[in-house]
Amino acid sequence: MAVIQPIVNLVDIFVQHGLTHAVICPGSRSAALTLALARNEAVTTIVSIDERSAGFIALGLALGLGRPVAVVCTSGTAAYNFAPAVAEACFQHIPLLVLTADRPKEWVHQQDGQTIYQAELFGKNVKKAFELPCDTAHPDIRWYANRIANDVFLSANTFPKGPVHLNVPVREPFYPSAGDIWMPDPRNRLIGRLGSYHNLPVESWHMLQDEWEETDRILIAGGQGMFSEETCDPLARITEEWEIPVLGDITANLGNHPDFISMQDAFLHNDVPQPALRPDLLVTFGESFLSKRFKNFIRKNPPRRHWHIGPGTHLVDSFQSLTLRIPVDPGFFFRKMLEDIDYKRFLEQNEATNDSFKQEWLKEEYLAARIVSEQINKNLTSLDDLTCIGSLVSALPEDVFLHLGNSMPVRHANLLRRLGLRQNVWANRGTSGIDGCVSTAIGNALATSKPVCLIVGDVSFLYDRNGFLLEQFPQNLKIVVLNNGGGNIFRLIDGPRNQPELGRFFETRHSFTARATAADAGIAYDEIRQPAELEKTIGKFVASEGPALLEIFTDPEENRKVSEQIRSAFERSGS
Amino acid sequence: MAVIQPIVNLVDIFVQHGLTHAVICPGSRSAALTLALARNEAVTTIVSIDERSAGFIALGLALGLGRPVAVVCTSGTAAYNFAPAVAEACFQHIPLLVLTADRPKEWVHQQDGQTIYQAELFGKNVKKAFELPCDTAHPDIRWYANRIANDVFLSANTFPKGPVHLNVPVREPFYPSAGDIWMPDPRNRLIGRLGSYHNLPVESWHMLQDEWEETDRILIAGGQGMFSEETCDPLARITEEWEIPVLGDITANLGNHPDFISMQDAFLHNDVPQPALRPDLLVTFGESFLSKRFKNFIRKNPPRRHWHIGPGTHLVDSFQSLTLRIPVDPGFFFRKMLEDIDYKRFLEQNEATNDSFKQEWLKEEYLAARIVSEQINKNLTSLDDLTCIGSLVSALPEDVFLHLGNSMPVRHANLLRRLGLRQNVWANRGTSGIDGCVSTAIGNALATSKPVCLIVGDVSFLYDRNGFLLEQFPQNLKIVVLNNGGGNIFRLIDGPRNQPELGRFFETRHSFTARATAADAGIAYDEIRQPAELEKTIGKFVASEGPALLEIFTDPEENRKVSEQIRSAFERSGS
Repeated sequence: MAVIQPIVNLVDIFVQHGLTHAVICPGSRSAALTLALARNEAVTTIVSIDERSAGFIALGLALGLGRPVAVVCTSGTAAYNFAPAVAEACFQHIPLLVLTADRPKEWVHQQDGQTIYQAELFGKNVKKAFELPCDTAHPDIRWYANRIANDVFLSANTFPKGPVHLNVPVREPFYPSAGDIWMPDPRNRLIGRLGSYHNLPVESWHMLQDEWEETDRILIAGGQGMFSEETCDPLARITEEWEIPVLGDITANLGNHPDFISMQDAFLHNDVPQPALRPDLLVTFGESFLSKRFKNFIRKNPPRRHWHIGPGTHLVDSFQSLTLRIPVDPGFFFRKMLEDIDYKRFLEQNEATNDSFKQEWLKEEYLAARIVSEQINKNLTSLDDLTCIGSLVSALPEDVFLHLGNSMPVRHANLLRRLGLRQNVWANRGTSGIDGCVSTAIGNALATSKPVCLIVGDVSFLYDRNGFLLEQFPQNLKIVVLNNGGGNIFRLIDGPRNQPELGRFFETRHSFTARATAADAGIAYDEIRQPAELEKTIGKFVASEGPALLEIFTDPEENRKVSEQIRSAFERSGS
Repeated sequence: MAVIQPIVNLVDIFVQHGLTHAVICPGSRSAALTLALARNEAVTTIVSIDERSAGFIALGLALGLGRPVAVVCTSGTAAYNFAPAVAEACFQHIPLLVLTADRPKEWVHQQDGQTIYQAELFGKNVKKAFELPCDTAHPDIRWYANRIANDVFLSANTFPKGPVHLNVPVREPFYPSAGDIWMPDPRNRLIGRLGSYHNLPVESWHMLQDEWEETDRILIAGGQGMFSEETCDPLARITEEWEIPVLGDITANLGNHPDFISMQDAFLHNDVPQPALRPDLLVTFGESFLSKRFKNFIRKNPPRRHWHIGPGTHLVDSFQSLTLRIPVDPGFFFRKMLEDIDYKRFLEQNEATNDSFKQEWLKEEYLAARIVSEQINKNLTSLDDLTCIGSLVSALPEDVFLHLGNSMPVRHANLLRRLGLRQNVWANRGTSGIDGCVSTAIGNALATSKPVCLIVGDVSFLYDRNGFLLEQFPQNLKIVVLNNGGGNIFRLIDGPRNQPELGRFFETRHSFTARATAADAGIAYDEIRQPAELEKTIGKFVASEGPALLEIFTDPEENRKVSEQIRSAFERSGS
């Protein structure tokens, strides 16, 4: 009983804090963690044999649930396989409780079993790291273990949320005996933490409002995030009433307002000056920006002032123009500005300029949308990634949670945002890896009963196919694999395209398909090899019941051609 | 040209030091590394899209070649996917040059692209870590970069060998232009390092020889290693001429001498005292020991003295009995003892005792071998893992390099060593993970033209199936998957077997097979589902040309039964 008791207490504290889901990887050293979670009725468990996938499944679950999810593994390199998901969660501020069983310290590096240096395993790529004490004889240790349990959960779940590593050294025996009692210690003490919000002194608000009112050309830009109406509604009013352009990639999830700008990655140029679009004040919020062209545009045309809204403390200056951090919630900030600024006065002063500034951005937006849309219509007889994603996003139901693989799917979908405006779009853009796209979508689907769809390239799909090694595949998940036989992005970039090593070392051309992987997991599979099949097969796929995988074989040369066509269409348009 | 030149110099130094193989994962940030390796005629390149597999393929190559192999990836979590192989290489002392492209420091944690904290990524689980300077304007930096290139290779390749991480921050542009010249800088300077060996002062040799001669019951035990005749021949003479028992697991590769003891994991008991087998002096060498019973036997019966032979400096005391480190090469040590000790005198003094001590061990060895062999013959009508491995090791060619998966295959094969005595047996026992068994065997096969065979369980196979995502599968590799539908080891251990959660959380029962994975990679596949098919199908499989995968569906309950039968046979024998 002694071995299990501290772990039962740990899980009890987690559950009292609100833990509901755990992803468990098989192992013996981790048996107490597994059993304490499996035998707690409040916890739904998912079993995955590959820790790399398990990490991303937990990430997808936490993304969907909005609260910490536990993920458990045994000792040794198993824990290292969590690292890609831990890093992604860290840079995306997704709360995970990363529970790794370990040998006690005296057994590390003693050539005995599954043992590596596990303490502090994730270095700076994790929010915090703790270690549970192994010997619990002294009463202070019970206090310490109770405190750690609370700290692990609170650290993961407090802004900025993130993955927290708890290393759990365990001595044998690992398993309880038949007569063992499974009860949390009644002295287990929950330490709560009230929610709080950041505000600014009234003088700061006045200062900001004065600067805002004095500025002619304000541009608001949102980075990645799952923003609620609390943020999107005031932004819609700001762009409508104050004629201030509001911009966001597809991953910013700013909602469906038709005036929101999202074609910036198409219409901004790296080499042509676009002075009409230069802001005097840039106001950003959210996480990473997908549009490289937008970042380059701002870097080359730094605004006089750049405010970043958000209470985080890590100094990010990816636009190389930041002048002021405003540590409050973005939705609160925009609502406060709307409420406090005498907007009639604001309009009188700024209407002419702001109006024309927003119109400059919107003009480019509409033109770009037309070019892309014409391009797609022109290509309906070819199987290229962009056209296929276009057909897909138009066909998907409104309430779908859409996952997009790095690197091309998210870029293509971004170009097509106006075709199928929607909320709830996700890509692993914290570290932009291809190593967990499939498992993240699986985890997300396990967290909801709504439909989830993943659009992913062949390399990302193959990389993370072990996400399929699940007991039960989520019934609400549909996957589209765009198989262009390699890492097609390299063919679209000048640098690698011009190297003789393109095919072997960059694209890594291959002839693997997703068919067998789907069949092995008992998932309905269909494929498209001809443009004529596109519409009908997508329709059937979207309408089908249960999980399904659709593989569309697109032509890498067609993809290159479409990318060229769009590029030259934009050049011709002078945009 | 500026971007590529320092990398060309780096690769040039590596090649001058003897680099011949590199495993390359696709990426853009890593383009200069990829191109410098791909365009160097001395380097054979292998491309793998999954960095986790790539790391283990490099490990297998380095194991086969006996010298450092480079492995390259782009920035971000890609680098973290190398971690399991890096840890295994670190604890096994296998030399790897782990080359990870990175963003320059100023871009870390700036929400821009594939970026994590990469410097010192592998913590204490790597031999050394370096970072190449990103800005090379100052002449001192050229000196520094040249020194680092030498240091990386020398550190990896100097005893104790190991993985060395070189983080390579790279600024754009990543790709050379058409006119760029690709020549190593003529000022590139190779820093060599002579081989050396450890010796002891003559007084120390005398002291050791005196103690050796005075001791009645000496036991020599070898841990994991690929020992040459230089070590095995003197050991054979020592056991023949001095009647000293020499013991080693199958992973010790001590060679084919019939007197070498290897059944210790069967005949040693955890609870029955075996005083006749207690040594007064234990002499160990090599890396980890597979036999848990042997470790427990020594821990419970610590010898008066325990010498460990080997020049390593890390203090390993896994038997909890170590009294003296003797920092010389084991082969040198045993030859020196043979040469220097007046062995006639030694025999006169010790023959009676030593002879009976060796006979005590051999008696147990022969009895154990008979029990196991009878057990297998009895079970020829059932499909269990042990019987299948028995049939396999008997059928495999003499010169095969045999890879054994953790956790059961290596344990079963260990029981069967006497059935098919052979050299060149490998298992990833540095950290005993299941995450790279397939890829390690693939890498090893790529390093040789001799036959390579992997025997692996279903969970390990599925875990590492991405090793199959290669351009060309090695023609000399055969794989046997023992598919018992889960992690069968858990059914064989008392702890998990008695939990109601056995099937779901520990064994993780599943119905996946290897068939589709083999077909996808174009590898011949055969299966065995009936005991009657065993001999013929194995014969066909072993005799077949080219790569092949044989999947044997064994029965988890049969496996449990056989394990019980052997256990009780040993109990009945009173051994």
